[in-house]
Amino acid sequence: MTNQSIFIGEFLGTALLLLLGNGVVAGVVLAKSKSNGAGWVVITFGWGFAVLAGAYAVAPLSGAHLNPAVTVGLAIHNSDWSTVPLYVTAQLLGAFTGAVLCYLAYLGQFRANTGEVLGIFATGPEVRHRVQNLTTEAIATFVLVFVILATGQTKGLETSGTGALIVALLVVGIGMSLGGPTGYAINPARDLGPRIAHAVLPIPGKGGSDWGYAWIPVVGPLIGGALAGLVDIAVY
Amino acid sequence: MTNQSIFIGEFLGTALLLLLGNGVVAGVVLAKSKSNGAGWVVITFGWGFAVLAGAYAVAPLSGAHLNPAVTVGLAIHNSDWSTVPLYVTAQLLGAFTGAVLCYLAYLGQFRANTGEVLGIFATGPEVRHRVQNLTTEAIATFVLVFVILATGQTKGLETSGTGALIVALLVVGIGMSLGGPTGYAINPARDLGPRIAHAVLPIPGKGGSDWGYAWIPVVGPLIGGALAGLVDIAVY
Amino acid sequence: MTNQSIFIGEFLGTALLLLLGNGVVAGVVLAKSKSNGAGWVVITFGWGFAVLAGAYAVAPLSGAHLNPAVTVGLAIHNSDWSTVPLYVTAQLLGAFTGAVLCYLAYLGQFRANTGEVLGIFATGPEVRHRVQNLTTEAIATFVLVFVILATGQTKGLETSGTGALIVALLVVGIGMSLGGPTGYAINPARDLGPRIAHAVLPIPGKGGSDWGYAWIPVVGPLIGGALAGLVDIAVY
Amino acid sequence: MTNQSIFIGEFLGTALLLLLGNGVVAGVVLAKSKSNGAGWVVITFGWGFAVLAGAYAVAPLSGAHLNPAVTVGLAIHNSDWSTVPLYVTAQLLGAFTGAVLCYLAYLGQFRANTGEVLGIFATGPEVRHRVQNLTTEAIATFVLVFVILATGQTKGLETSGTGALIVALLVVGIGMSLGGPTGYAINPARDLGPRIAHAVLPIPGKGGSDWGYAWIPVVGPLIGGALAGLVDIAVY
Repeated sequence: MTNQSIFIGEFLGTALLLLLGNGVVAGVVLAKSKSNGAGWVVITFGWGFAVLAGAYAVAPLSGAHLNPAVTVGLAIHNSDWSTVPLYVTAQLLGAFTGAVLCYLAYLGQFRANTGEVLGIFATGPEVRHRVQNLTTEAIATFVLVFVILATGQTKGLETSGTGALIVALLVVGIGMSLGGPTGYAINPARDLGPRIAHAVLPIPGKGGSDWGYAWIPVVGPLIGGALAGLVDIAVY
Repeated sequence: MTNQSIFIGEFLGTALLLLLGNGVVAGVVLAKSKSNGAGWVVITFGWGFAVLAGAYAVAPLSGAHLNPAVTVGLAIHNSDWSTVPLYVTAQLLGAFTGAVLCYLAYLGQFRANTGEVLGIFATGPEVRHRVQNLTTEAIATFVLVFVILATGQTKGLETSGTGALIVALLVVGIGMSLGGPTGYAINPARDLGPRIAHAVLPIPGKGGSDWGYAWIPVVGPLIGGALAGLVDIAVY
Repeated sequence: MTNQSIFIGEFLGTALLLLLGNGVVAGVVLAKSKSNGAGWVVITFGWGFAVLAGAYAVAPLSGAHLNPAVTVGLAIHNSDWSTVPLYVTAQLLGAFTGAVLCYLAYLGQFRANTGEVLGIFATGPEVRHRVQNLTTEAIATFVLVFVILATGQTKGLETSGTGALIVALLVVGIGMSLGGPTGYAINPARDLGPRIAHAVLPIPGKGGSDWGYAWIPVVGPLIGGALAGLVDIAVY
Repeated sequence: MTNQSIFIGEFLGTALLLLLGNGVVAGVVLAKSKSNGAGWVVITFGWGFAVLAGAYAVAPLSGAHLNPAVTVGLAIHNSDWSTVPLYVTAQLLGAFTGAVLCYLAYLGQFRANTGEVLGIFATGPEVRHRVQNLTTEAIATFVLVFVILATGQTKGLETSGTGALIVALLVVGIGMSLGGPTGYAINPARDLGPRIAHAVLPIPGKGGSDWGYAWIPVVGPLIGGALAGLVDIAVY
């Protein structure tokens, strides 16, 4: 994989991830949407299939990390940090772009909006507590990155091309099981890129971007991803 | 693939797609149906599994495009437009036929109907705005066609026969994430064929066929599919 | 496959299908069940995963038809009726046994029952009309059997062992899309075996077994399965 | 597989299973959780994807039994009991640890708790009746272990790496279909480990651990798993 294909792949894939991921929340939350009120089952499956879309779209280009926590976990696992800045930059730009595309897809709904919409773009805690929220994000991301690393050990998944399907369903499961307390960022780019988009987009009544919380869904997932890389080295 | 197998495959596959796709909406919307009120999660999974049925039914015959936007995206990608009219004609006839079969499967429910039923057959916007609705359809269809083209690059999907499963789940995801504003036609045949069926079928109290909107779910998806073909050429 | 393995396979597999299939409806319908009121999405996925369980349990023994309509469709397709009576007999006995096992699994709930429970065991129409109900069952079963026959044509599904997964998801989709009018028997054994179980089991207040309707979910699916066999011959 | 890899694999895998499995119930049951009230469809899919995570995380290390009933069924099937104590010990310790991790992930929610929470950790019956509850658990576990043993016979599942996906979806189905009466432990470690965690964790208002019931989700699944091993030998 060349630097160019990595950049294009991560940018495009993370943009698709956020377009669909922010999109499912927009559809459930905003008025004048056919999916309004569709609930947690739609939000969690929607985010999982967002991973499916992003991953199959660009896996041959960049390996489809789409997530700095995955990139860091793999860097630790492979002892190779040379492409980490490239991956993370592309992921952040892609995540921002995906959030803007979601805004365009739901433009009519956003223009008619009258309440806070940060929850469409970025995560936030139900009980605000720095250590607890960091812990939840680190645990959830550990599960994500550890299983991703382990699927690379499972005979046949790669040759049959179904590895990304397993990861997509895993993301559905993490959302269902560990999304309750903080909304499962489990991905620094997924949270930070769209939070910036929220800050700059002209949405009426959008409310604040909660920058005081913004470091938690960055640091928590990075801790979890790094731990997963270390544990994977220890046990495999 | 011969012209005959292409025509039969696209006709049959698109008919199955619309029989099941229109069917899931009919079941959720119409009274005296066991699935009445089952909600967005059933509608989106139902449409995805409609793609699954249509695609596995006819993939060996025609490649199972089932969608003019896919056909156009592939034509651009392969620089070969020779079979496009054949594919699109069969898709439109199949979509019309599938809608009629759905009407027959739900005949008792349709005969007892007293309200508008266009939503069972064709899509419509929650906020009516030509540019916004075109944009939403183009974005959603870009995702569909771009990922379909990319899965052709993923090692193993075709030899394991699971490519159509991925596409079916992708369609579930697009519905969940981008279906809110316009009902995600993402397929000109899926919308136009059943709209014609709605216009001609003898359903009491069925209401109008909203022909003023009908061009948007045709043009929007074609723009998205064409863009996907171009971007796929650029990045792969 | 020997006659013995066919009989054991179809008996066991259809028993598992009905244990789980009747079970999901029992759980949703009966009081004092954790899944009470879980709705159509659970019923349709539950029946699909019942197919998954039955099919993977016995596919190596009998090919896992689990359904006389599938057996007839295959007999027409292969011009070989020699094992049809063996398959169908085992399927009916298995379906009856599965319904009894479901009764045992939900014994506490059934003993506390006070209302009609036929809907747990067998299907019934929302609008009672012989021709309409036959048509709905025939159309839905055509979809099932036609796609099953076609998946046999899809490269890789059998060698990767994922054919039964596709069929299970297809059954979820048929339920979501075409289950509304009649409850989608789409399988004569699935309906008749448990209806007999309903007639003989000692359930308080269970109500009648609706024998006047019982022929429709037998004949309708057989028509649909036979048509699918014929169309498959015509187009493949 | 060495003793060390077996122990590490079963410990880690069962910990992941319980972290996610207890987690989905915590999210649905506890207040101040985004998934509060998400219902049976989320609980059953959540538990299934918990199996998916645990199984893919450690399959190459230990074969991913994650369940003493599976271990016993395989021991009977293979006539080899030498590693059973190792497997079961690791599973119990892992299950306890997973429950504690779930407690940490939902710490803010647990600290704010005011009602009984045993249902998050361990199973309990809707109708309390020893023989009935044992029967339900034995039947449900028979289905699980028999299908797991049979998938080992299905050509291609292992080489394509999708066997664990089938088992995960099977667990969704067992929950949907047979979870109503007792909450489907179907795994002695899944129930006993977290019940001990419930007994020792400092949760306000947590209520009793219902030790009078605790033997049933241990003995019932072991009976079901053993029967599955015996029937598998008889029919395959």
